[in-house]
Amino acid sequence: MSILFEPVAVGGMTLPNRLVLPAMVTRLSGEDGLVNADVRARYARFAAGGVGLVVVEAMAVHRSKSGPLLRISSDEFAPGLRDLAAACHDAGPGRVVPQIIHFLKIARSGWRQTVDTLSLEDIDAVVEAYGLAALRARACGFDGVELHMAHAYTLSSFLSRLNARKDDYGGSLENRLRLPLRVLARVRGEVGAGFPVGVRFVGDECVRNGYSTPDAELIALRLARGGADYVSLSAGGKFEDARPIEGEPLYPYTGYSGDRCMPGAQYPEGANLYIPAAVRSKLRAAGLTTPVVAAGKISSMAFAEEVVRSGKGDLVGMARALLADPDLPAKWSRGEEDRVVRCLYGNVCKALDESFKRVDCTLWPKKLGQAPRSDDRVPPEWPKDGPGLRAEARGGTVRLTWRAATDGDAMYGYQVLRAEGEGPLVHHASVRAASTRYEDVRVVVGERYRYAVRPYDMAGNRGAASPEVVAELGPLPGP
Amino acid sequence: MSILFEPVAVGGMTLPNRLVLPAMVTRLSGEDGLVNADVRARYARFAAGGVGLVVVEAMAVHRSKSGPLLRISSDEFAPGLRDLAAACHDAGPGRVVPQIIHFLKIARSGWRQTVDTLSLEDIDAVVEAYGLAALRARACGFDGVELHMAHAYTLSSFLSRLNARKDDYGGSLENRLRLPLRVLARVRGEVGAGFPVGVRFVGDECVRNGYSTPDAELIALRLARGGADYVSLSAGGKFEDARPIEGEPLYPYTGYSGDRCMPGAQYPEGANLYIPAAVRSKLRAAGLTTPVVAAGKISSMAFAEEVVRSGKGDLVGMARALLADPDLPAKWSRGEEDRVVRCLYGNVCKALDESFKRVDCTLWPKKLGQAPRSDDRVPPEWPKDGPGLRAEARGGTVRLTWRAATDGDAMYGYQVLRAEGEGPLVHHASVRAASTRYEDVRVVVGERYRYAVRPYDMAGNRGAASPEVVAELGPLPGP
Repeated sequence: MSILFEPVAVGGMTLPNRLVLPAMVTRLSGEDGLVNADVRARYARFAAGGVGLVVVEAMAVHRSKSGPLLRISSDEFAPGLRDLAAACHDAGPGRVVPQIIHFLKIARSGWRQTVDTLSLEDIDAVVEAYGLAALRARACGFDGVELHMAHAYTLSSFLSRLNARKDDYGGSLENRLRLPLRVLARVRGEVGAGFPVGVRFVGDECVRNGYSTPDAELIALRLARGGADYVSLSAGGKFEDARPIEGEPLYPYTGYSGDRCMPGAQYPEGANLYIPAAVRSKLRAAGLTTPVVAAGKISSMAFAEEVVRSGKGDLVGMARALLADPDLPAKWSRGEEDRVVRCLYGNVCKALDESFKRVDCTLWPKKLGQAPRSDDRVPPEWPKDGPGLRAEARGGTVRLTWRAATDGDAMYGYQVLRAEGEGPLVHHASVRAASTRYEDVRVVVGERYRYAVRPYDMAGNRGAASPEVVAELGPLPGP
Repeated sequence: MSILFEPVAVGGMTLPNRLVLPAMVTRLSGEDGLVNADVRARYARFAAGGVGLVVVEAMAVHRSKSGPLLRISSDEFAPGLRDLAAACHDAGPGRVVPQIIHFLKIARSGWRQTVDTLSLEDIDAVVEAYGLAALRARACGFDGVELHMAHAYTLSSFLSRLNARKDDYGGSLENRLRLPLRVLARVRGEVGAGFPVGVRFVGDECVRNGYSTPDAELIALRLARGGADYVSLSAGGKFEDARPIEGEPLYPYTGYSGDRCMPGAQYPEGANLYIPAAVRSKLRAAGLTTPVVAAGKISSMAFAEEVVRSGKGDLVGMARALLADPDLPAKWSRGEEDRVVRCLYGNVCKALDESFKRVDCTLWPKKLGQAPRSDDRVPPEWPKDGPGLRAEARGGTVRLTWRAATDGDAMYGYQVLRAEGEGPLVHHASVRAASTRYEDVRVVVGERYRYAVRPYDMAGNRGAASPEVVAELGPLPGP
């Protein structure tokens, strides 16, 4: 059996496998902050796919309005949250924890509140709000709680190397840790020893003068010694480099640090793994066994297994890959990786979020608002005259065209497979069913490329691969 | 013998060792662009220290004024360049190549020329200027030439994923490569097969929507196949995230990508090694033996050896470490690493450059304008009543104080050694001789730290280590 599907103990809970859905904004909630049917359906869908731990998107611990974001700041939100936890538990074997967040005020004028302006009473209020929210999470039937200490939000801004406070809450790393540690201690005090409390923070701020892994290692050490049951690592997502848009509040994933938070097609697989690798190594050297969640463009089963085997992480976080196909865990566990609908890492989901729109996967059928679910086992078929795959090299790209495959109403897309030189054909890109063309811009003169295309349906069933075609970009140009 | 001190063939030249001084601006040149005595002395000093390859700071290939930057754009610059090459050859065993650069116009108003505005004639002129400059470099007695394709300059801006041209010089990666490849081919045509031609480019742009290692691998492949004799890899240093300063031209190392170009104290050792590791692996898989220069906060001999042994690079580039102590190669080769004056990575040199000031090392004696040179073998001594080292933990930091050591006029500084828990004492920081205190902010509650201090003189001779002192930051704070 794959190491990914061994049950694993995290604090007081046992996860059925090592796969984690990290918190990911959906923008399915209304301004009222209540759980609605769309929210419930989205998370139940993830749970149904078999993921070991569902971290429900950030919900606000403080009383103020929070835009279209879930809230856990008073008992009026409890019934919806209870239904959400129950729906997930009913749908699948995984455990479910909410990510709870405090953030500072922000205005359309461009103004934003910074941590150096908070009074000691404001700080005490943050501690209290986290404590009460965690207690409410437990009361609502969640299996644990995750404290959001990442990205552009209050606790992360305290941890930041750019924290400008001059008192006991800024300056030295230990001072920057003071509020996050107080929050962790208060939450632990409220929920007791047996209730899992995880933390998520950034291991590399990815902004000018921000911290990188050396500080992250020490932050993890302190949080783990402070009682965190797991440490989940992200990167970037900060206000400091966000791109201002006239009349809109600054949004922290729009700059370079946002790119690094959700590494897109221009990044290698596992672009952020140096972070959990460094942190886990520090924790283990200190004798701590706290599980570490590694994330950042992890998409294949072999790669995910290697993350665990090589000690870069104990749990594997995948947000976009699970958005594209919530059934990925079930398919991997059955040895059906070939039926997974693979994320393109084109970051359409990220762009939707940045436009304050509902975060869907661009691969999903437009009207469904959800990943399709199907027990269909019949794969798509090529037309009688075959796939007709052609490759044309020009202008430094390779343009592929092919004929449409069919699968009743259930055609979903095409996988483009590519080999360099005499190498093996591997997954290179995916194309939605509406299109029968692909332009490969990641090619250079002097290499020989082989391509094939496979159609797949809503259930992820692959049709036959097309015959291979070859493309070469021609001779080296002269001076 | 260390693998670092094996002679290594690079194109038509043999380097006496694997250590490289990457191009580093000195701001020693005047507006006239001519080599002066200060420039000559600076590079001769590096050569005298035994480094295998000296890459002289970027010199302009185009005819326009270039501020206080060396120029190689006409024969009036040749006598000075000839003297510079000769001075380096006279001073040490290393080879010497100039880095040649083309850059676009920039104004104090904030305006800057971008590659999408260049006409085809402008592009042809870039090719021609590089060809003539390379020929001049050969005529002046340099051992090769390095083409600057990195950071914020013309060729790098063509390689960039943000290159906005709509013609054959933009869009696909192959189009982005077209001008750099034309330049390489023209230079090769001018200087002939036997004259080493290296390239330096960024393996990770470190700006929003910029490229990362997947593109860098292909860029290296094309440049190596195009005849580059070595590939030297940097990161960042772009205009896109530079911090504008009213009335000053935009400077490309002032943003986050500048931090990543010269990783400071907040980064781990070898922070950029993922870049040469990925690139070298790609080249070797394609059957190419082109040497790869790895750089980015490499400071210790064991670490440098590991870079080569683990296949992350063939040559080891160190700019700031050699600025702090140009004799580092000679000292390493004699097994005297303990006499090296270690870079603090405090980036005072980077800040001087950003302020358009002469780039000195903050460790150097103020009036010397150069690293001191001494054959002295007498180490500093502590006063009769001993070093008196004391550690005080407060406010989340550890404050060390000690008594001044003496060494005639030649006291240079103190090394702070630190151990975590029961671990070994290792170099943690250095302090200039004018001070006898150090505040350690990289400490956390729950750890036990041991410290010692050693004085060192201008020749790098270390005095006796002080007796150890212990610091603990006290108990974990409550909720």
